[in-house]
Amino acid sequence: MRFTSEQHADNGVLERAFTLGEIPGILWTPTSAASAAAPVPLILLGHPGGLHRMYPRLVARARRCAADGFATATIELPGSGDRPRSDAAEQARADLHRALAAGEPVDEEIVDRLVLPLVDKAVPEWRTALDALLSLPGIGGPVGYSGGVIAIGIRLAVVEPRISAAGLFAGSFVPRTMFEEARRITIPLHVLLQWDDEGNDRQAALDLFDAFGSQEKTLHANMGGHTGVPPFAGDAVAGFFTRHLR
Amino acid sequence: MRFTSEQHADNGVLERAFTLGEIPGILWTPTSAASAAAPVPLILLGHPGGLHRMYPRLVARARRCAADGFATATIELPGSGDRPRSDAAEQARADLHRALAAGEPVDEEIVDRLVLPLVDKAVPEWRTALDALLSLPGIGGPVGYSGGVIAIGIRLAVVEPRISAAGLFAGSFVPRTMFEEARRITIPLHVLLQWDDEGNDRQAALDLFDAFGSQEKTLHANMGGHTGVPPFAGDAVAGFFTRHLR
Repeated sequence: MRFTSEQHADNGVLERAFTLGEIPGILWTPTSAASAAAPVPLILLGHPGGLHRMYPRLVARARRCAADGFATATIELPGSGDRPRSDAAEQARADLHRALAAGEPVDEEIVDRLVLPLVDKAVPEWRTALDALLSLPGIGGPVGYSGGVIAIGIRLAVVEPRISAAGLFAGSFVPRTMFEEARRITIPLHVLLQWDDEGNDRQAALDLFDAFGSQEKTLHANMGGHTGVPPFAGDAVAGFFTRHLR
Repeated sequence: MRFTSEQHADNGVLERAFTLGEIPGILWTPTSAASAAAPVPLILLGHPGGLHRMYPRLVARARRCAADGFATATIELPGSGDRPRSDAAEQARADLHRALAAGEPVDEEIVDRLVLPLVDKAVPEWRTALDALLSLPGIGGPVGYSGGVIAIGIRLAVVEPRISAAGLFAGSFVPRTMFEEARRITIPLHVLLQWDDEGNDRQAALDLFDAFGSQEKTLHANMGGHTGVPPFAGDAVAGFFTRHLR
């Protein structure tokens, strides 16, 4: 992990860009953490890919988390942003968009082609990032994972024992084979569902919530469309992480 | 409205039993309200019937609301507690319990016989109680309705303009004809659903949530069974009312 830039954003947050091998990432720490006696908990910020495009929303989430006393970090997804594209993934994405544009049901085979290789590639990268982040002074556990491609969150919650709570956004496609992984999750889950999200299959999201094996799992369904998560829903996510990571 | 007893409970709450004609009820006010400059908002506490049986849970909710600066009040439901039974309602209740005990699907006709007359009778009583409560010194609007038989909450939310936010518990049967009323609700709604509530039809609860006409509606689904609403879900209800009534 190599830091490439550092800036003090407003609101008491130190923002540092880094690269992890070829993978760009960003780390935000509360400036109060530098003088804190104990290392601060870390929340990994998931996103749909494209750090530049997602930056304004990521930094808003990072600031909120810093105010609650958490460090946050994110890395670019395989095939997004400036990272090399995969022909197979690009083909799957094009097939998905064609089906959505035509108003057709999305074939499970397209979802598998799009999401499974992404999960297989991204999850080890997030785990490597976690190794590097937790070795930094001032950053400790417990670790949370928040938002982003829900299939990545599911796999991470199953395979990464250092993650002790996850806030998931039921807003993207999940291969049916991953429902079996969902049943093996035991950590507390907080799931956001935008009830009127036209690009999302509500019934599939409810089936997935039902499948999660966690004893503590909460679904918060709200209005406002895919990107219109209301502020009070963000407050509830913050409350969830404060309950479980502090 | 005639007060029949008065006691200072602990935690800064004044509890007063009252009768409204033949109907018993309880009013809780934060003791701080006596010296407050402005009247405090009021939350009507719904319940499934039987004030004595429900008292421990009602007083816990009342204390929490008082801590948040709200007065709360409740009245006995028709045919519950010491109020006279109706033969038709008792028959419908027996038919419901027979169907549930046999593990049979509950006939809509039974639900109609049980719930519709209850709603028709209870809602005017709650409105009369509201008239009396809002005429008391120190108690003002806005008014919320929280929990209890969801069909009563639906009707109240439609017909009673003084109620400006409702927290509903999706834990009891709703006649299909009331879905049309649900579509006419416009006030903010916060709906609790116990995901693993064996005595409740989860799909019907989700259909009902979908039907609500409110622009702001939130569904919080949790584990823990019918009576096992987790403490953090209660906190979320409190946050909802604080957002809308203060």
